[in-house]
Amino acid sequence: MSRPAHRRPEYHKINKDLFVLTYGALVAQLCKDYEKDEDVNKYLDKMGYGIGTRLVEDFLARSCVRRCHSYLEITDIIAQVAFKMYLGITPSVTCNNSSRTAFSLILDKNPLVEFVEELPAGRSSLCYCNLLCGIIRGALEMVHLVADVTFLQDRLKGDSVTEIGITFLKKLDEKKYRRKK
Amino acid sequence: MSRPAHRRPEYHKINKDLFVLTYGALVAQLCKDYEKDEDVNKYLDKMGYGIGTRLVEDFLARSCVRRCHSYLEITDIIAQVAFKMYLGITPSVTCNNSSRTAFSLILDKNPLVEFVEELPAGRSSLCYCNLLCGIIRGALEMVHLVADVTFLQDRLKGDSVTEIGITFLKKLDEKKYRRKK
Repeated sequence: MSRPAHRRPEYHKINKDLFVLTYGALVAQLCKDYEKDEDVNKYLDKMGYGIGTRLVEDFLARSCVRRCHSYLEITDIIAQVAFKMYLGITPSVTCNNSSRTAFSLILDKNPLVEFVEELPAGRSSLCYCNLLCGIIRGALEMVHLVADVTFLQDRLKGDSVTEIGITFLKKLDEKKYRRKK
Repeated sequence: MSRPAHRRPEYHKINKDLFVLTYGALVAQLCKDYEKDEDVNKYLDKMGYGIGTRLVEDFLARSCVRRCHSYLEITDIIAQVAFKMYLGITPSVTCNNSSRTAFSLILDKNPLVEFVEELPAGRSSLCYCNLLCGIIRGALEMVHLVADVTFLQDRLKGDSVTEIGITFLKKLDEKKYRRKK
C-alpha cells in the first residue's frame, strides 16, 4: 500500500535513541512470544521484509540514486546511502566470491545495540538485529532483486565485528536493462 | 541501568521512517498478542514507561535544560525540547485547570501515524501511540514528578486534533527547591 500523496512526510530527522529503545522493546516482546530463537529471528526478518518493501519507495525518491550496473554498486548504495540515512552509520563493504554476487557489510558500530549489554539469558542463537536483514531483503525485492541476507558475525555473540552477508540470487536482466537505458 | 560511559553514543540523528514503521510492527504484534484494546494500551504504556526512564538521563544531558519553576515550564520543555528532539515536532501547550496542574499537548501532526490510514478493524479503543504517554510518565518519574498521562483526543479516532493530557499529581517540593537554588 503506497502512502497517499497528501501524507507524504517532509524529510526530517529524529534522535535515534527513541528508535533504538523501541526496537529493544519489540525484540523483548517477540522473545516473550516465541520460545525458540529461530522463530524470533524468522519473525524479525518477516517484519523487516514488510518494512523494507515500504521504505524503498521513499528511499529511492530521496536518495536520487541512479540505476546500478553491478551488485557491488548496489551493495555500496546500501552501505553508503541507505545505512547512513536510516541508521547514521556507513558499514564497509567486502566482496566474498569471485563471481561478485556475495558481499558483506561490516559494521564497526551498530546503533541498534547501543543499549544492549549482551543477549538475553538462554537466547544465544538470537539474531537481535535480524530486522535489518529483512529490511534489506524486502527493499531489494521491490527493485526486482532476490537476495539472501543474514548475519554472518555479531558482536553480541562475541565476534570481533558485526557482519551482514548479502548474496544476490538472481542476476540482473542485462538485456532488459540495455533496452531501457 | 545506566549505559556504561564507553558506550555513550554521539548525538546523531536518523531518518524517522524506519522508527515509524518499526513502531507500527510493535503495535501490530501487541494486537496479535492481546485481544483487548485496553491490554494493548496498558502494555504500550508500560513499555513506554521503561523507555522514558532510560531516555531521561541523556535528554537532560543533551538538552541542558535548567530546573523548572512550574508545571507549565516543565510541560513547555516536554513540548518544545523533548518532542522536537525525539519526534521532530513541537506540540502546542494548553493549561486545563485553574490550579495549573493539568495541561495538554496538542499535536497538529503526529509522525508516529504517518503510515497509518486508520485503526485496525475491531480496534476502536486502541490508543495507537500510547507508548508516548508511558515515555512521558517514565521520564517525569525519574525527575521525581508523578503524573497521569493519557490521550484525550486522537485523530485516528476521528477527533480533529491529537491531544495528550498531562496531570501532575504531586506538587514540587518548593522548600527543598529553594534550599538548593
